Amino acid sequence: MGHALDYDDVHSDVRGHPSSVILPVLFALASGREISGKRFLDSYIIGVEVMARLGQAVGTASYLKGWHNTSLLGGVSATFAGARLLRFTAAETQNAVGIAVSQAGGLRVQFGTEMKPLHAGLAAQQAVQSLEWTQQDFHGTKTALDSIIGFLHVYGGKEANEAVYSALAEDWGKFWRIAAPGLWFKRNPFCSAAAHGADAALELAQLHLDAASIKKIDIIFPPNGDAALIHTRPKTGEQGRFSIEYVVALALLGQPFTLGNFGSTAVSVEAEKLMGKMSRSYDAEHKPTAQAIPKGRFTIVRITLADGSIHSREVSVPKGSPQAPLTDAELESKWRESAPDQHIAEQILEAIRGMENVRLEELAELL
Amino acid sequence: MGHALDYDDVHSDVRGHPSSVILPVLFALASGREISGKRFLDSYIIGVEVMARLGQAVGTASYLKGWHNTSLLGGVSATFAGARLLRFTAAETQNAVGIAVSQAGGLRVQFGTEMKPLHAGLAAQQAVQSLEWTQQDFHGTKTALDSIIGFLHVYGGKEANEAVYSALAEDWGKFWRIAAPGLWFKRNPFCSAAAHGADAALELAQLHLDAASIKKIDIIFPPNGDAALIHTRPKTGEQGRFSIEYVVALALLGQPFTLGNFGSTAVSVEAEKLMGKMSRSYDAEHKPTAQAIPKGRFTIVRITLADGSIHSREVSVPKGSPQAPLTDAELESKWRESAPDQHIAEQILEAIRGMENVRLEELAELL
Repeated sequence: MGHALDYDDVHSDVRGHPSSVILPVLFALASGREISGKRFLDSYIIGVEVMARLGQAVGTASYLKGWHNTSLLGGVSATFAGARLLRFTAAETQNAVGIAVSQAGGLRVQFGTEMKPLHAGLAAQQAVQSLEWTQQDFHGTKTALDSIIGFLHVYGGKEANEAVYSALAEDWGKFWRIAAPGLWFKRNPFCSAAAHGADAALELAQLHLDAASIKKIDIIFPPNGDAALIHTRPKTGEQGRFSIEYVVALALLGQPFTLGNFGSTAVSVEAEKLMGKMSRSYDAEHKPTAQAIPKGRFTIVRITLADGSIHSREVSVPKGSPQAPLTDAELESKWRESAPDQHIAEQILEAIRGMENVRLEELAELL
Repeated sequence: MGHALDYDDVHSDVRGHPSSVILPVLFALASGREISGKRFLDSYIIGVEVMARLGQAVGTASYLKGWHNTSLLGGVSATFAGARLLRFTAAETQNAVGIAVSQAGGLRVQFGTEMKPLHAGLAAQQAVQSLEWTQQDFHGTKTALDSIIGFLHVYGGKEANEAVYSALAEDWGKFWRIAAPGLWFKRNPFCSAAAHGADAALELAQLHLDAASIKKIDIIFPPNGDAALIHTRPKTGEQGRFSIEYVVALALLGQPFTLGNFGSTAVSVEAEKLMGKMSRSYDAEHKPTAQAIPKGRFTIVRITLADGSIHSREVSVPKGSPQAPLTDAELESKWRESAPDQHIAEQILEAIRGMENVRLEELAELL
């Protein structure tokens, strides 16, 4: 559901959304079993860890080629998480992961359609199947991940290599990637690659510029910094979740980033007009701050007015990212805004606050 | 089931097994609908045509990289076949294919395991889902096949290019690939890439050489001609389906190519001993006959005896391939050997002989 609303969490090592696949798998497995909150969290941390490490191993070129990392890496990682929850042996884990590899997939070309969030659901289903089939003594290969015709080689990008693959489990447990660099909880319901530009545009919106006076808007990224933003002239709010132009237009027009503005209705005439003045460009030389997330990422929104004056803002650390996290109060208010029933929403918050000691069944029943 | 027994048909443009995915999908869709045998065959022919064309478009490098074409291409192609059967509009077909693309996958690293044949089943399931979700008005992208981040580009091998992609539908209907080069019906229950070597070994078996007198056996392919044969020293008959060494050993030891010899039991000590004398090599210069299938393929089995004498056989057109087809009588006897109930087997044969006029329900009920 988080993935359907593009309201989910992000991990910059993953270039995707760990919880949208891992959590449904863990909830499905916990159902009808006596699982403590502590054991659940432990499995969740392992899932995020594996997904971040796999993300680094397959590398950027894999994503650029067209893979949707949330589903591609998510199914395999959620299988690891589930194997941990079910206390699988190493051999059972290896088998389940092999089966999951055979089902991995999902292409970014679906961004902005109903099919995109289903990728996360299908990946979760694949993970549950892989675990259940293993319990039923169904067998795949043991070398699905690291064979020369296995997952890492087939899906890995061209910058990935043997050294990267063999470092996959190095320094295990030295730090956990769920905490460093950490999960990024979205402030707004659109692709996190647009978060930098959104914050820049919100700053510019403070200037209350008249849309009619705007001559052009340049949006500048590092090369490939906009790979996820596949729609330059979206027709609907749904496509707009993957369009920096639509996000910037909403901000400058004073329109809020509500779920309604990212639904299946057509984009407004005003937004369309403003988007017509925008163009993207790339600057390989520009260096953002060392804190930039993902590393090296920035977005500059530069408005040129009819009178020749220029207003420009750059953002490298968007609000919500691990370096500028939402406060607990902000996270809770985001939760309350999305929840259909406020009474249950409070009960769930209470359960999550005491997660380490909660029994999963109690929480699952509320969800 | 055909895929599980490695007894299925082959198409050399596909480098995989069309019917193992397309037929189950068409049978599933025909169930409960009034579908004539003629309409069924028409959809089947379209499915094979699309799969062969997609196979040519993604190219050899895709297979060599690690993809299992039967599932990778099968799900998408069976979706085309099913859309034809259901008389989808072009827009509906486009949508269903887009959804199928998002689920495509399966790696060759699973060859010789229980997971491999499940690839075909999962691909068939994906096709049915893609068609049903389309009927329920669920939407994906329209550009899943040919976008720069779509199926052909992401899965296409490095020798494939724009020219190949744009020729995808060229000369549609000029000839049908189900007839030219045509389907290849396996004579034996193992990977068709071993069929050439099997025939060569069967010829050599006629010499009744004593296994103890054999010093070494060289098995020579064109480069990558053995890509599907991923097991050089199989431990079980199941792995042996993807091992030229095991197939050659059985032939030379006078062991029949029965389903039992390709099951989950361990390979015999004699076979293991003989396989220890074998090695593969590649000859890029050697040119087989123009009739070779796949184009340029050959396998030479060369036995060197302890006394220094050499016995060698080369096969380019194995028995069962379109250039040396099994007779109807041979096909029917293969069918009878695999069928558990001989009475039903005869009824099914009868229905298939009159396929153009049969009602699908009658046939489906028998199956």
